[in-house]
Amino acid sequence: MDKKKLYIIKIGGNVIDNSENLYHFLKDFTAVDGYKILVHGGGKVATQLSETLGIEAKLVDGRRITDIETLRVVTMVYGGLINKNIVAQLQRFGTNAIGLTGADGNFIRTKKRPVKTIDYGFVGDMDDKSIDPQSLEKLMDAGFTPVFCAITHDGEGQLLNTNADTIASALAVALSKLYETTLVYCFEKKGVLQDINDEESLIREIDPERYEKLKEQQIIHSGMLPKLDNAFTAINCGVKAVIIGKSDDLGQLKHENSFGTRLSNKK
Amino acid sequence: MDKKKLYIIKIGGNVIDNSENLYHFLKDFTAVDGYKILVHGGGKVATQLSETLGIEAKLVDGRRITDIETLRVVTMVYGGLINKNIVAQLQRFGTNAIGLTGADGNFIRTKKRPVKTIDYGFVGDMDDKSIDPQSLEKLMDAGFTPVFCAITHDGEGQLLNTNADTIASALAVALSKLYETTLVYCFEKKGVLQDINDEESLIREIDPERYEKLKEQQIIHSGMLPKLDNAFTAINCGVKAVIIGKSDDLGQLKHENSFGTRLSNKK
Repeated sequence: MDKKKLYIIKIGGNVIDNSENLYHFLKDFTAVDGYKILVHGGGKVATQLSETLGIEAKLVDGRRITDIETLRVVTMVYGGLINKNIVAQLQRFGTNAIGLTGADGNFIRTKKRPVKTIDYGFVGDMDDKSIDPQSLEKLMDAGFTPVFCAITHDGEGQLLNTNADTIASALAVALSKLYETTLVYCFEKKGVLQDINDEESLIREIDPERYEKLKEQQIIHSGMLPKLDNAFTAINCGVKAVIIGKSDDLGQLKHENSFGTRLSNKK
Repeated sequence: MDKKKLYIIKIGGNVIDNSENLYHFLKDFTAVDGYKILVHGGGKVATQLSETLGIEAKLVDGRRITDIETLRVVTMVYGGLINKNIVAQLQRFGTNAIGLTGADGNFIRTKKRPVKTIDYGFVGDMDDKSIDPQSLEKLMDAGFTPVFCAITHDGEGQLLNTNADTIASALAVALSKLYETTLVYCFEKKGVLQDINDEESLIREIDPERYEKLKEQQIIHSGMLPKLDNAFTAINCGVKAVIIGKSDDLGQLKHENSFGTRLSNKK
């Protein structure tokens, strides 16, 4: 039997921080057919609230630290303010959304990052047992569309901050056991560009062979390399395709190969 | 066929504001057999955060007003901080909790209170169409235990602040179409007392006839009257029993008639 199709779509601050962008994105998200999961990152609000509350952003070697005060703020802002407003908007458009952290339904269980040279604080790392796909299937089969913020838990009562890109990718890998899964990363560019300064130079499709060539030719700029490496890792773990594109254009997703850059093993 | 049993249990600030009380309550909640729903109110944190942010509490004729700033705070604190920490604790104890506002799953749809003499701001009022019991049944049948905070939505994208007691009562009435429903209000006293100053003077059971007598004898003090009136209204709308008791004692719920005061139509 053919697997059911599932889209996992991740948005970040450039959508969340702009109410007009968010409105259009959520309308387009509602128009995506079939099973789907939304994963959202943070945006500026958490930083602003931390500043107002006098909580200093803590960085060690350029890496952000989640102390207990910061965890409280992100739980309020990501898990409450942003997540529930997205859910209310989606309901307005007719998507039967349920807003979640990884603690809800025990959907994403992580381990607090061990302290080696740096203590990252309340940050949760995923492993291959973090997500039980059957449990999410039950929720979706009951008619609900999951909307995840980037907070997880350790199963011992502790909430943990976790990278939203990583959550999206881990969900895609875990759920590809049950679904034909496409992972969509929305960002501020139209996709992978031949020329970073030319939005018209979009590369429509990249398979592993082409990816090697593009890297050899140094066409892909350094900021994109980790994103694409992670995408091909997800594809090697069972995800059918990863699409990287601009949130404004999500409405094009229904037209085969007309949204963003599509990474997959097949032509 | 006999209806499945369902407990709807409401807690307020006296549990939420004390981490030790909350810990024990959530452990006892986990031990309650069968289907169950937790509804929680606010507590002091929202007030404290509002003060820190310089948002003045607005009262008109002694009634609290929910302006847009206050709505943001309660969405963060009730929907994020409190709700998600309760869920993480429940998961630790083995309850497969999902934290919800009324926007999630479109579970509780309300109408913004119309402005007559007072503009209450972003407050949602329930009616008999606010809750679709089938939709909640699907979630519970999928194996999840709903944990509601006191935020609802209007179906048009707007979150609204709603009284937690009212939510608990409306859930109980709506779900008694499908379940044999017991509504439990946890508060700081052991239940309805013959003598307000004597915790040992607990009245174990009250039926409508006894209630009339207790009112005639002026045994029930004025603060309890609206609670009990609302309880008997819920019972007349199909709820099997309403129990009013102390959160510390919830572990006694499994022993028939040994927790709090039980209000029902039957002896």
